[in-house]
Amino acid sequence: MKATVYHGARDVRLERVPDPVIKEPADAIVRVTRAAICGSDLWFYRGVTQWEPGERTGHEFIGIVEETGSDVRTVKTGDYVIAPFVSSDGTCEYCRENLQTSCVHMTNWGDDANGGQAEAVRVPLADGTLVKLTEGIANDERMLASALTLTDVMSTGHHGIVTANTRTGGTVVVIGDGAVGLCAVLSAARVLDAETVIAVGHNEARLSLAREFGATHTFNSHDDGVGEAIIELTKGGSPSVVEAVGNQSSMELGIEIARPGGTISFVGVPHNVKELPLRPIFLKNVSLHGALAPARAYIPSLMQYVADRSIDPSRVFDLRLPLDRVAEGYAAMDERRAIKVLLDTDVH
Amino acid sequence: MKATVYHGARDVRLERVPDPVIKEPADAIVRVTRAAICGSDLWFYRGVTQWEPGERTGHEFIGIVEETGSDVRTVKTGDYVIAPFVSSDGTCEYCRENLQTSCVHMTNWGDDANGGQAEAVRVPLADGTLVKLTEGIANDERMLASALTLTDVMSTGHHGIVTANTRTGGTVVVIGDGAVGLCAVLSAARVLDAETVIAVGHNEARLSLAREFGATHTFNSHDDGVGEAIIELTKGGSPSVVEAVGNQSSMELGIEIARPGGTISFVGVPHNVKELPLRPIFLKNVSLHGALAPARAYIPSLMQYVADRSIDPSRVFDLRLPLDRVAEGYAAMDERRAIKVLLDTDVH
Repeated sequence: MKATVYHGARDVRLERVPDPVIKEPADAIVRVTRAAICGSDLWFYRGVTQWEPGERTGHEFIGIVEETGSDVRTVKTGDYVIAPFVSSDGTCEYCRENLQTSCVHMTNWGDDANGGQAEAVRVPLADGTLVKLTEGIANDERMLASALTLTDVMSTGHHGIVTANTRTGGTVVVIGDGAVGLCAVLSAARVLDAETVIAVGHNEARLSLAREFGATHTFNSHDDGVGEAIIELTKGGSPSVVEAVGNQSSMELGIEIARPGGTISFVGVPHNVKELPLRPIFLKNVSLHGALAPARAYIPSLMQYVADRSIDPSRVFDLRLPLDRVAEGYAAMDERRAIKVLLDTDVH
Repeated sequence: MKATVYHGARDVRLERVPDPVIKEPADAIVRVTRAAICGSDLWFYRGVTQWEPGERTGHEFIGIVEETGSDVRTVKTGDYVIAPFVSSDGTCEYCRENLQTSCVHMTNWGDDANGGQAEAVRVPLADGTLVKLTEGIANDERMLASALTLTDVMSTGHHGIVTANTRTGGTVVVIGDGAVGLCAVLSAARVLDAETVIAVGHNEARLSLAREFGATHTFNSHDDGVGEAIIELTKGGSPSVVEAVGNQSSMELGIEIARPGGTISFVGVPHNVKELPLRPIFLKNVSLHGALAPARAYIPSLMQYVADRSIDPSRVFDLRLPLDRVAEGYAAMDERRAIKVLLDTDVH
């Protein structure tokens, strides 16, 4: 089969590799139908995080079960399934608390040569990890793309909204207009039914999509006085803030606009954050919540929202390529020509 | 009257100053009977925070109402009262949410020459600020000293325990064996009824008091492997952590020992925290809560615990001096010869 392999900064290639095989009784082999490139893939692509040449890439995919190990009970050959961006056993104390990203047996895609930007994947802990697609999704190309976002970005945006204590009828500010920020806006407006959803970004086209996703107000972070304007609009600051950028200025803006007693949830690994202003966090009784999303916890309910057309996160994909053009996809996201790239891995 | 005045680093003096007078209709004049020196007073005493010579010191006191302005309704001349470490109006949106430290009219003691380490204080916003002592406390010297701790350290320790989501029957780690850390232990063990209360400090006498306050386990932070030992004891980390030191190593220890999904509450202004490890906060889904205590919110209920002898936080006072020896009190705390100093301001 073919899989995407990291060779060095800005050098990923689709290559012929051995077909995946069942190694453990809990494994399943999934034939990938759609995969995606994640904003977080750009960290190794740009050489910011160190990867070894030869590592397999990709942690967002959906596909059809081809084979299952002898212990697998919840999925069978032929099932159309979705996997979150890490695998988890579904039975440990953290999984039972819906914190599957802290599963004691958690593994990342890419470990042990099973990256998701490939024609097939070996899925460890299949029972704890895979979720069957809800009826109707498999026959609808847009819903399939929406389901693909549940593997990571839509679940991550939603986790940010949930962990920022966003209230139905309440107010939330989302900082960042990448795919995760846009999905956070969608979650706030269409899942949590927040009344005031404020999006902050610097790309007018993306802010326009944020408005279509339900943002009631948008601000361009390059304009002066954005913090003051949001504090005025929210009459003293927002009780809920989702920080979906992860740099110094976005963290500082989040802390500035948080209402006393409010919560800031940050949904990505912060890079280039030199010094966090702890004094205002202390004086305002603000909570800063690290929010690596347990996507597995949200996939069943969010998939229902997709199936009944309440949300259409597929719109974050603005470039669609066949898998063999994966390198072009990375370049397009790296150069900010695309918000997010969908890779078609089955034959059309 | 006499009041304590800041003159420079390690130079505070009790001096004759004009008697306080009612300036606003919401003011009350309180004749101070007991005052205390706070660990946070050491920041200006040591010259770490910049104060102007001539500023009045002290924000922890109890006393008797001597005079009230025309708008004051809830206290009257002769009432024995307690004040939290800031004044608040009791009516704004934040006060109504019990976040009086964010009161829109909040003022610090020391502003406008009304420091609490004095014979008398002008109390702004008396109705929102002062609380009458519960029956029985005024006649009991130890209970009076306990009431004095509710102005700040006991309420602060309790706020840390509450905001760290400490559960009845649950587990909490308190980092720091100063007065606030000790009060946090007392709150966890005697107010919240946590089952496992782990205290971390570096002073054996204070850790011994922590055990008397209800700590089930104590660790000396100077020993090797404290983090690993606590993670083993708590089987993976503590769901609740109170950080009551405020430096780099104590913050790092708190983040290390927090269980995935747990909360770390920091109860003081962090000093010398260069870089907070945000990556483990993100990966573990930990909440970092800044916890400036709205003492006013807790005084009524905690005073009941004092009155019925459920808690005796007075034991954090290990040095008692008449007000005219206030400078000795500062030196004793600065040199770590005393945990906390009580100042007698009435005649004995």
